[in-house]
Amino acid sequence: MKINILSLFPEMFTGPLHESIVGKAIEKALIAVEVVNFRDYTTSRQKHVDDYPYGGGAGMLLQAQPIFSALDALEKQDGELGRVILLDPAGKKFDQSLAAKFSQEKSLTFICGHYEGYDERIRTRVTDEVSLGDFVMTGGEIAAMAMIDATVRLLPGVLGNQASAPADSFSSGLTGLLEYPQYTRPADFQGLKVPEVLLSGNHQKIADWRQKAALLRTYQRRPDLLENIKLNSQQKKWLREFAEKS
Amino acid sequence: MKINILSLFPEMFTGPLHESIVGKAIEKALIAVEVVNFRDYTTSRQKHVDDYPYGGGAGMLLQAQPIFSALDALEKQDGELGRVILLDPAGKKFDQSLAAKFSQEKSLTFICGHYEGYDERIRTRVTDEVSLGDFVMTGGEIAAMAMIDATVRLLPGVLGNQASAPADSFSSGLTGLLEYPQYTRPADFQGLKVPEVLLSGNHQKIADWRQKAALLRTYQRRPDLLENIKLNSQQKKWLREFAEKS
Repeated sequence: MKINILSLFPEMFTGPLHESIVGKAIEKALIAVEVVNFRDYTTSRQKHVDDYPYGGGAGMLLQAQPIFSALDALEKQDGELGRVILLDPAGKKFDQSLAAKFSQEKSLTFICGHYEGYDERIRTRVTDEVSLGDFVMTGGEIAAMAMIDATVRLLPGVLGNQASAPADSFSSGLTGLLEYPQYTRPADFQGLKVPEVLLSGNHQKIADWRQKAALLRTYQRRPDLLENIKLNSQQKKWLREFAEKS
Repeated sequence: MKINILSLFPEMFTGPLHESIVGKAIEKALIAVEVVNFRDYTTSRQKHVDDYPYGGGAGMLLQAQPIFSALDALEKQDGELGRVILLDPAGKKFDQSLAAKFSQEKSLTFICGHYEGYDERIRTRVTDEVSLGDFVMTGGEIAAMAMIDATVRLLPGVLGNQASAPADSFSSGLTGLLEYPQYTRPADFQGLKVPEVLLSGNHQKIADWRQKAALLRTYQRRPDLLENIKLNSQQKKWLREFAEKS
């Protein structure tokens, strides 16, 4: 996969692109990442990339020209841009299903804005306007890093253990519930003990405990997830039990 | 504000902490950031920080000891940890109101996990379990960066223009709507033209156009936001108009 990033702060990507899973995917040549400073493409003599909004208002807007020219140059070089993703707090919210769609593409091009906003005409060149969530950041760079990380880990060969890509989801891919509580050594740490059942060696009991614990955690923290799940009769019984206790 | 980050990949933060708004806030001494590699605190001779889950299962879990020891050392040094935030895909979803709460604190401590999960006992030391959204990343580092960026930009003195912190929100702080489309020079770029009204100099017409455009964009993209807004009669009229056209 080829990933292009248009940004005024290319140095922001130095750490994230050389460490962790994304760095390893680049080393293994599973992905190639090109960070383009679109200030290099402005036709402005003063190297400006922003200007005041027509009709008045606070702040500056990114101009269409430097972005258009940077996209044109990349498209000429690679033959394609793939999906062109505008990082925009007013865009569609990024989620796991969008990460999965992105991971199917041959190329992805991220446009990272900064500060006040985009000239509306920039949107004519994009396929996706995407937001990381309902919060405001100073620029699109970190949002792009997050989306790239979530996407790249889904590519074949990137995670050491193929099996673990779907399993460690925010909700288990298999059950749609949050993960059950997990414990590792020591069994007693500063008086905090691992539940007896996990030390019992009884696989059926452990499986039952985990199912119930995952359901309880989901019930307490993300009851909205339960609406999308077909519950079995045991789970319904447990839910009645939780409701009585609370 | 003092910000502590516990991470196994401290180099990931090099770029993001030296560039953009967060870098400037550090330069201006408005914030201080300390990145701690909690591997330095493990009592394991092999410098391990993870181990297999009790009761079986795939993947490795972060152990409690290195995290507890790193937190103890920071607390001893600073006298406090402030809010201790565990980056966890099963946590409460980060949003602007949480960024605003974080920005009121004297200290914030982020714990960035990696891969499979945490020993449950780590949660006994945290005040907040927070998720960046409904997607899975390979680690908490980029999520922490996003939350730090969204939080730090709200601190007094960080953004050059105080006025712009709330205004450039994912939804306008004043109206609860998405931003209206904006344009900057040139008026005609490759045949793509700025709407006439924005060039008219008629402030009332411009204000009306923007109000209607913001409402239309919100209606098309985030109708859920409209539920939280008290609409005036003009807005209700426009909404009926949009509904008839669509």
